[in-house]
Amino acid sequence: MARYVFGADVGGTTAKIGLLTETGEKLDFWEIPTRTENHGEMILTDVAEAIRNKMKERNIDDSDVIGAGVGVPGAVNVDGLCYQAVNLGWENYNVVNEFHSKLKLPVKAGNDANVAALGEAWKGGGQGYPNMLLVTLGTGVGGGIINEGKILTGAKGSGGEIGHIHLVDDEVDACGCGNHGCFEQYASATGAMRIAKRMLAASSEDSVLRNGDFECKDVFDAAKKGDTLAVKIAEQYGYYLGKGIAITASVVNPEIIVLGGGVSKAGEMLFDLLMPSFKKYVFPGCASAKFALAKLGNDAGVYGAAKMMIQ
Amino acid sequence: MARYVFGADVGGTTAKIGLLTETGEKLDFWEIPTRTENHGEMILTDVAEAIRNKMKERNIDDSDVIGAGVGVPGAVNVDGLCYQAVNLGWENYNVVNEFHSKLKLPVKAGNDANVAALGEAWKGGGQGYPNMLLVTLGTGVGGGIINEGKILTGAKGSGGEIGHIHLVDDEVDACGCGNHGCFEQYASATGAMRIAKRMLAASSEDSVLRNGDFECKDVFDAAKKGDTLAVKIAEQYGYYLGKGIAITASVVNPEIIVLGGGVSKAGEMLFDLLMPSFKKYVFPGCASAKFALAKLGNDAGVYGAAKMMIQ
Repeated sequence: MARYVFGADVGGTTAKIGLLTETGEKLDFWEIPTRTENHGEMILTDVAEAIRNKMKERNIDDSDVIGAGVGVPGAVNVDGLCYQAVNLGWENYNVVNEFHSKLKLPVKAGNDANVAALGEAWKGGGQGYPNMLLVTLGTGVGGGIINEGKILTGAKGSGGEIGHIHLVDDEVDACGCGNHGCFEQYASATGAMRIAKRMLAASSEDSVLRNGDFECKDVFDAAKKGDTLAVKIAEQYGYYLGKGIAITASVVNPEIIVLGGGVSKAGEMLFDLLMPSFKKYVFPGCASAKFALAKLGNDAGVYGAAKMMIQ
Repeated sequence: MARYVFGADVGGTTAKIGLLTETGEKLDFWEIPTRTENHGEMILTDVAEAIRNKMKERNIDDSDVIGAGVGVPGAVNVDGLCYQAVNLGWENYNVVNEFHSKLKLPVKAGNDANVAALGEAWKGGGQGYPNMLLVTLGTGVGGGIINEGKILTGAKGSGGEIGHIHLVDDEVDACGCGNHGCFEQYASATGAMRIAKRMLAASSEDSVLRNGDFECKDVFDAAKKGDTLAVKIAEQYGYYLGKGIAITASVVNPEIIVLGGGVSKAGEMLFDLLMPSFKKYVFPGCASAKFALAKLGNDAGVYGAAKMMIQ
């Protein structure tokens, strides 16, 4: 008999929910609005109700459901305690207890970046590799460490929060976390733009990037087309990306490193850009790590949330 | 009925072996020589024989023994494959298969630094904390990451090899691994001596360290006695130590960080020395980590090897 599992990826605007088979076949993925009013007290009620409705619609009994995992935008410890999820209004909120009391099925909870990493390890760019590092290159840099097939959660749910490892000593700008010189100040989309603007200001070299406003994507597009200054910017970006990944890989020794997030749409050129500094800085015992691109896009969190229930 | 477990910590000169109860009570610890001739082919035979002899001596049946774990000085993957253990003469040697074929009891194997970390987590400085980072400050810097009570092995057994994370950009001296600016070039005993010699050469300030030869221990002893230059050297050492630990902690979010190895004999002054840079560089979500000193000394590996069998 088929057995089912649900995964939910709760964001500040919508919650993505998925119904999957236990082998990871995607049966039904849909979204509901995230109601953040009153400290987000209805969020998990809504997710639980959506799951219950789907079970009725498809005549799925409780006994056919392994459970439901949920990823949330905040640090979550192994007991399901979410210390803070600013975008949801939660503070010291036990996601596992609350979700279970509403859904009455087995549940698990994790940080959304970590859960997405598990999704990519299960069905995405890291499939087949029990030791994986996901590096998410978005507005910030997030990440997740999969160790022997499971999320490395850490003491307070900040395992894999690699965007804030220290990378550069003489940085004058502060990171969002308050420190100076964090990995994400260079390797995020925001970081790439910062590097681009600094290098454009420091040079008088011609570049298509000088023709009005540009976005992070334009830098890599221009570099692909051979714009000399854009190539230099992309190389500088790759230097920092490779250095940060090298340090992280030297701590946890992943078999594969998966790049996700908006910047990863630049594609395989990123591997060429990061490789010189990765090779320079990585501990030789960890240098054989493979690189891959994330495959699941916005579905990674739903897959990972479901996978939490099957291990 | 009492159940027993054996642990062995194999070094290049001797192998320490221990008989413990499954709750970690130390019943009998002893040493045998390590025979490294012929690519170390007799090493595990000798350890197995020593364990079998101990069982006979104490009338312990096979059914009373949970098994025997072994820590070795080289990277070991989750399948027990040791890629290289230079001091033992091994290369691509499956420790689990070989040890099991000789002992005929359940066995496990791990890298000695990782196994020592597990020992400290079980019965030493990290007791009671399932998420622990051990930093071993010896001739080099070793380490081990304990995640939810288990060793983080990594893809090729180099998980927790934190001595080789990149720390300093402008280092001219090469590290033993071939890279430049590795954590262990500053935070090991050798690193402390290097810092001391550099600072002595760069200053004309008076110091007891100028009275002939000195060792790493003398630097910290002089600092404790208020020797001004020795204090500056110790502070510089602490700066690097705190920075390297901060980066590592920001990746894996340990609840407690345990300092072991020869330099850790300087004691709690190390916490004061490392704290300013630890606080400066650590991701705020990981800043609440506790610090402690290792407690088991040379027994840590035996405890950890035994503990591998009980989880």
